[in-house]
Amino acid sequence: MSNKLPTRKEDYSAWYNELIKRADLAENSAVRGCMVIKPYGYAIWEKMQAALDGMFKETGHSNAYFPLFIPKSFLSKEASHVEGFAKECAVVTHYRLKNAADGSGVIVDPDAKLEEELIVRPTSETVIWSSYKNWIQSYRDLPLLINQWANVVRWEMRTRLFLRTAEFLWQEGHTAHATRQEAEAETRQMLDVYERFATEYMALPVIKGVKTANERFAGAEDTYCIEALMQDGKALQAGTSHFLGQNFAKAFDVQFTSKEGKLELVWGTSWGVSTRLIGGLIMAHSDDDGLVLPPKLAPIQVVIVPIYFNEEQLAKLDEMLYPLRDRLKKLGISTQYDNRDTQKPGWKFAEYELKGVPLRLAMGARDLEQGTIELARRDTKTKQFIPFSSVEEVVQQLLEEIQQNLYNRALSFRLDNTTLVDDYEQFKKLLDEKGGFFAAHWDGTKETEEKIKEETKATIRCIPLDAKEEAGKCIRTGMPSTKRVLFARAY
Amino acid sequence: MSNKLPTRKEDYSAWYNELIKRADLAENSAVRGCMVIKPYGYAIWEKMQAALDGMFKETGHSNAYFPLFIPKSFLSKEASHVEGFAKECAVVTHYRLKNAADGSGVIVDPDAKLEEELIVRPTSETVIWSSYKNWIQSYRDLPLLINQWANVVRWEMRTRLFLRTAEFLWQEGHTAHATRQEAEAETRQMLDVYERFATEYMALPVIKGVKTANERFAGAEDTYCIEALMQDGKALQAGTSHFLGQNFAKAFDVQFTSKEGKLELVWGTSWGVSTRLIGGLIMAHSDDDGLVLPPKLAPIQVVIVPIYFNEEQLAKLDEMLYPLRDRLKKLGISTQYDNRDTQKPGWKFAEYELKGVPLRLAMGARDLEQGTIELARRDTKTKQFIPFSSVEEVVQQLLEEIQQNLYNRALSFRLDNTTLVDDYEQFKKLLDEKGGFFAAHWDGTKETEEKIKEETKATIRCIPLDAKEEAGKCIRTGMPSTKRVLFARAY
Repeated sequence: MSNKLPTRKEDYSAWYNELIKRADLAENSAVRGCMVIKPYGYAIWEKMQAALDGMFKETGHSNAYFPLFIPKSFLSKEASHVEGFAKECAVVTHYRLKNAADGSGVIVDPDAKLEEELIVRPTSETVIWSSYKNWIQSYRDLPLLINQWANVVRWEMRTRLFLRTAEFLWQEGHTAHATRQEAEAETRQMLDVYERFATEYMALPVIKGVKTANERFAGAEDTYCIEALMQDGKALQAGTSHFLGQNFAKAFDVQFTSKEGKLELVWGTSWGVSTRLIGGLIMAHSDDDGLVLPPKLAPIQVVIVPIYFNEEQLAKLDEMLYPLRDRLKKLGISTQYDNRDTQKPGWKFAEYELKGVPLRLAMGARDLEQGTIELARRDTKTKQFIPFSSVEEVVQQLLEEIQQNLYNRALSFRLDNTTLVDDYEQFKKLLDEKGGFFAAHWDGTKETEEKIKEETKATIRCIPLDAKEEAGKCIRTGMPSTKRVLFARAY
Repeated sequence: MSNKLPTRKEDYSAWYNELIKRADLAENSAVRGCMVIKPYGYAIWEKMQAALDGMFKETGHSNAYFPLFIPKSFLSKEASHVEGFAKECAVVTHYRLKNAADGSGVIVDPDAKLEEELIVRPTSETVIWSSYKNWIQSYRDLPLLINQWANVVRWEMRTRLFLRTAEFLWQEGHTAHATRQEAEAETRQMLDVYERFATEYMALPVIKGVKTANERFAGAEDTYCIEALMQDGKALQAGTSHFLGQNFAKAFDVQFTSKEGKLELVWGTSWGVSTRLIGGLIMAHSDDDGLVLPPKLAPIQVVIVPIYFNEEQLAKLDEMLYPLRDRLKKLGISTQYDNRDTQKPGWKFAEYELKGVPLRLAMGARDLEQGTIELARRDTKTKQFIPFSSVEEVVQQLLEEIQQNLYNRALSFRLDNTTLVDDYEQFKKLLDEKGGFFAAHWDGTKETEEKIKEETKATIRCIPLDAKEEAGKCIRTGMPSTKRVLFARAY
């Protein structure tokens, strides 16, 4: 623990990588681009899953599970899906190994070649809609509201832990509806669910918007997203919700008999968030001393450390602190009592700071005498002594306060780093100097969007849903525009 | 719902397949051997996961996630592991698709060939122990108690829904310990956890035992298992717990510095159960009318059906039954109120019977007058009228009673179908006529075990942990034996 992390200012990217390593969240594996999510990192994912899964079920969705493999031919069925997607995929071509003749190990059995290659799912629209064809006959079978928790693989060339990995974990919702209106409402509802999750659990303010045609999911008519701002001024797409129109229904011939007895094509949506959110969580709140986790997603919310110089003192502290731990646990607060004798208190303090535990309680001999306990907040780094008798009350209140404080802090940061800009040179200058979100006019053409990207590395993150109608001129071409869109460099 | 299921007696296998289809549990997908787990089937898996995950955490385990892919060379590292395993695997050889020149769709890009082929994990010992090498340096890092919930792929030639599929879902625990004793204790502890889960949740009596060398997991020193008996007299291996000795530590060079400062090899275990348990659950309890689910794993524990002839009656029933549903839900009972007007009560009764809902409540106009409600048990098919005011109490009590009754019934069945046998001809005859478990003497040799398998299709399911020491003669060779082992034909 003696080595400090690189600071964010020095090297944001090194800080991020080193923090993940030291806080024991994840690591690269022997397989290129695939990560190992270590127990502490996975515990955050489990908390995310539990919260999201609850929200999905509240809104009427059920979980199911579809195959990992997709027949190659399925990917050719939806033209724009295959055009815009699915090129960098893991391809299964054989189904058997055999012992090498020279005894050196195993080799792929050349006789066991698949007739049709299988693709490890990069996303599951095709395989799911091929099932939906059999599940949907009548309007009575609709809406079909299904979610899947799964691993997916996209053969990314440049990977970064959590943010971009060849294999990642996610959830993908896939719903089918009788009308365009219902499917559009579902798309927006799930965007709202994501916004609520980001806000309430991740303490992460997000901007809801719609992607430009260029950035749209391949196969969607509209892609909605939530976009967040990281501390280095880069944007992170934190979740997407797609209105698929009838594209996949057409590709897989999914029709239903309406109440009026007419055969109609089904309307679809899909929506997903992934372990990338953990990367966003880290980058939004953490500091140069380590992780800062919002209490609602922290695997350990409170840690209690006894400070003692001999066995007798420890025994007395144990007597007070084991029951305290149990009382906090009973209140639903995930609490750890660390009375290990293999490490010193100072080491433990640094360790839990690094791991982003929101509240630390420490008690020593003097506290025992005085009936106090020391309480330290991870977010503000403030400490105070409080009466031992008030711990439960104070802890509960502070966990809420920390959750709120992290949100407020991230929101201020975003507001401070969102710039209204009307001049292209100014835009380019500020992108380099300050970063952040830029609200600017755009002429609505793909050509301009791509030119701006080429010249500045900034992309249109979204057209915010709450963007005001206002007459303006495109920042690059001067052509007329009716609302500002959100530019940023992005992960 | 008019078509009856095939009966178990007529055709057990057709009954099983048809039941899974009609109860909407799962189906085959377009990918050979891979199933789609439909929402109702997946809901059972979620209940299993929740119960098991709680037990794993209670016993000190954490979840983590390791890569889907295993470099081919890893499989060559543990000699007996590769010898006995890992031949029928999905092999990834390429990482990119491209558009076909003729515009017909996508093809595998021949230029995107991997240098080293990747195997889709059939089990994760190798990839996990390659990580453990970096995680374990000192005795302080031990024990390492990790579990993973994941999908795995074994390219089975003959597949059956839930029981044997190319891809399946499971959990795999992988632990590392400082001593043989600790690792052995862990192996046995997890076997006990599986037994408790089978008994308390699945209402499934199991026999704990150890596998013969022949049936041992490739790479293990000992494989423990729980074995259950299905209604057709065939055995089902429901879970395994392996004592790995130092085999994987050797293969991946995982050593630690002991308290005494000596470098030592780590001891390992691994243990798993899979979606196969759903197959076992179906086959253990269900009948010719459909699923019978133990209340603790039933996605819907209670269904309430209103019986009405006009809107006015329905309105009155709604007024009583919505609040009843909510009261039951508050008691933690998963309850559904089905007042759909698209289906008749008779249809609904048959549907919920088929789906194995443990308790059905039905209320009509006369009940309203008399303050009663009709209650039907799925397990015994008995019905009774009870006072409306007593519903909560009766339902809670009956759910417990049903859970217990299913266990008792399955236990009686197993006891009735376990035969002590000392004569080989008798054994062969009873295997065909009656099936079930056979407790018989065996001379302990691989040759005899294989001959018996060849001649009878029965295998040694396990050497029960509670097998009494008794002098006997091998049922096939007459050679001396000290305890009876358990034979059966098996899934």
